[in-house]
Amino acid sequence: MTGWVTLLTDFGGQDSYVGVMKGVIAQINSSLGVIDLTHAIPPQDIAAARFHLMNAVPYFPPGTVHIAVVDPGVGGRRRAIALHVEGGYLVGPDNGLFGGVLETYPVVQAVELTHRQYWRSPIPSQTFHGRDIFAPVGAHLASGVPITALGSPIDPASLTQLALEHWHQEADTLVGCIQAIDHFGNLITNVPATAIAPPYSPTRWRVEIGHEQIASSTAYSDVPIGNLLALMGSHGWVEIAVNGGNAQTRLQCSPGEAIRIRLYNPESVT
Amino acid sequence: MTGWVTLLTDFGGQDSYVGVMKGVIAQINSSLGVIDLTHAIPPQDIAAARFHLMNAVPYFPPGTVHIAVVDPGVGGRRRAIALHVEGGYLVGPDNGLFGGVLETYPVVQAVELTHRQYWRSPIPSQTFHGRDIFAPVGAHLASGVPITALGSPIDPASLTQLALEHWHQEADTLVGCIQAIDHFGNLITNVPATAIAPPYSPTRWRVEIGHEQIASSTAYSDVPIGNLLALMGSHGWVEIAVNGGNAQTRLQCSPGEAIRIRLYNPESVT
Amino acid sequence: MTGWVTLLTDFGGQDSYVGVMKGVIAQINSSLGVIDLTHAIPPQDIAAARFHLMNAVPYFPPGTVHIAVVDPGVGGRRRAIALHVEGGYLVGPDNGLFGGVLETYPVVQAVELTHRQYWRSPIPSQTFHGRDIFAPVGAHLASGVPITALGSPIDPASLTQLALEHWHQEADTLVGCIQAIDHFGNLITNVPATAIAPPYSPTRWRVEIGHEQIASSTAYSDVPIGNLLALMGSHGWVEIAVNGGNAQTRLQCSPGEAIRIRLYNPESVT
Repeated sequence: MTGWVTLLTDFGGQDSYVGVMKGVIAQINSSLGVIDLTHAIPPQDIAAARFHLMNAVPYFPPGTVHIAVVDPGVGGRRRAIALHVEGGYLVGPDNGLFGGVLETYPVVQAVELTHRQYWRSPIPSQTFHGRDIFAPVGAHLASGVPITALGSPIDPASLTQLALEHWHQEADTLVGCIQAIDHFGNLITNVPATAIAPPYSPTRWRVEIGHEQIASSTAYSDVPIGNLLALMGSHGWVEIAVNGGNAQTRLQCSPGEAIRIRLYNPESVT
Repeated sequence: MTGWVTLLTDFGGQDSYVGVMKGVIAQINSSLGVIDLTHAIPPQDIAAARFHLMNAVPYFPPGTVHIAVVDPGVGGRRRAIALHVEGGYLVGPDNGLFGGVLETYPVVQAVELTHRQYWRSPIPSQTFHGRDIFAPVGAHLASGVPITALGSPIDPASLTQLALEHWHQEADTLVGCIQAIDHFGNLITNVPATAIAPPYSPTRWRVEIGHEQIASSTAYSDVPIGNLLALMGSHGWVEIAVNGGNAQTRLQCSPGEAIRIRLYNPESVT
Repeated sequence: MTGWVTLLTDFGGQDSYVGVMKGVIAQINSSLGVIDLTHAIPPQDIAAARFHLMNAVPYFPPGTVHIAVVDPGVGGRRRAIALHVEGGYLVGPDNGLFGGVLETYPVVQAVELTHRQYWRSPIPSQTFHGRDIFAPVGAHLASGVPITALGSPIDPASLTQLALEHWHQEADTLVGCIQAIDHFGNLITNVPATAIAPPYSPTRWRVEIGHEQIASSTAYSDVPIGNLLALMGSHGWVEIAVNGGNAQTRLQCSPGEAIRIRLYNPESVT
């Protein structure tokens, strides 16, 4: 492949919408590689899109173009944008779905997509900009068209931000919430593993959720099959899991539910 | 890529059937690109396959080979066929699933797949022609084998047609039905947007379904969040949607349900 | 493509875990082709992974690297392995998921993955070896790194085996069970079609399941729509199906349920 494009949408697998976007890309440049991140974002769930995109972007080749289409405002006044960030490009609606990526990879250059010669047709549909604007623009970008050719520069400070709940620290406690639940029923908190840092022990802490107190471990197999554990997950968040089981089923909780992480400071022995 | 193949099946994602077809294609020509249209056609639902294929084919590079396997008659007397149409090729069973594509792209050449040297093995299974006949034939076709080498010419007029309900016009009303419902719950009628043409206003019409009267809009955001609207959908059909919501859930309707489109003729003011 | 990799996991389609593995592979070698076998293995179901892998491996180009990640023991003491077999390579945890492939393709060479220079980072996560060990090792293997460079040789006889129920013969009867149920509701037994061999008739036998007696056929269309039939399935197992329908829904049975196949010996007429 001479360039890489990823796709993340809320289109599901039932229709041919994703296939059609790939057809449009193939028509523009048949030597691009296209990788699906996921198409199972719940319809119109920008926060879920933000979460999955943020976790995936670090693992792709330099220059990869990430096209994300969770776009409830399609056809309305929201802007269509392309962002150059360290390591790659982001293409999609300006509705906050890139906010998580931008926390780690700041914007180098931002444009509003206004140059219609890079769209599939000069007059796009009002309902499927994935096909008519984002896929063709992403394909051109991955093929070497400079981002500045795609539209008018915009101020990165003007980009839409999602209002999200953040974690914070209260004395020896980190206060946060469940931000996502994965296919295995692992509960992924919004507390980054890096928040558990000196002077606190990185290996001795516990998570409280509802009436449960869950001790930290380093691997699923540290506890017997069927037992709850808390650990630093593979994407860098504090997670709650069940060894060989499903923590969501066990704890019956949903995204947004509050959690507290009790830290241990080995130097402050009373 | 030196050629493109698409796959549309009712195989679902649970088994390795689709992966196996891709392995067979890769064995024949490792430089072909393969794009999934969808594998979530309901089992044996030829009409749904026809609908999704018809909507996707226009968006692919010239010469793309579309392999479609929704094949309840596999192993029986239905013919296996390849069709050359303007812009590409169609490979699959002769059961009507290509009928929608053919309304726009007439057959240039049709053959029955009888030349076993292009099959995976000279004696195919009786239950998986996707793997044993359609994937290898499609891969050979995408690699430059002429369609006439694949089998015996057949008369395009002999191709199987699905008996489908068609829309019609009664005075200032278009009478049709819901032909499909997408992942977002958008209700896609069988009335093409082009049917709303002069002398009737393209922007002033309404759809009646059950007891609802739904005014036309041009974009989801023309109405408040949660409201019903009717619009010309991205694939060219009149659709019913809910801005930020799900029209199927709201209206509790199914494919086949009758709709009426009331047109407005600005020149016939009474 | 200059090499092929397949992926089989229990990761589902909801998260970006599979996409991330593909990003890691693309970073190592952008000219590899990646084919999904399935990602819908039920969580931690090693036996299901074994079944789908065994059925798919025979259909891929020589040298294909099959990465399989159904890995409930990740982060624990189970070994990470790569196996060279006739026709290709297998990469994943040593938990028995390759056992079905090995029945047909014996091990040529086996190594434990101990050479960290072929991993994504020298210190992998404890929960996502698919991303940190198996994807990068598979990409290197598909790019020409010799299997012996990836780790220490191990004795193939030491590989973990699943304890599975096997079929056996009692006089003129084959006794087995349902080993899998596919997307169409076809019931796939653990009896290979080759077990119905001379002196028994290959075309005259019947399957007993619960109170049903189901006669053998060669194709779905041998029986009227809606009727049960038994046949030799496309992957080489005796299967129970309903023409145009779903045998699982009809018979309400689950994997593991006992079946008996009554054979007919034309030479032993009484």
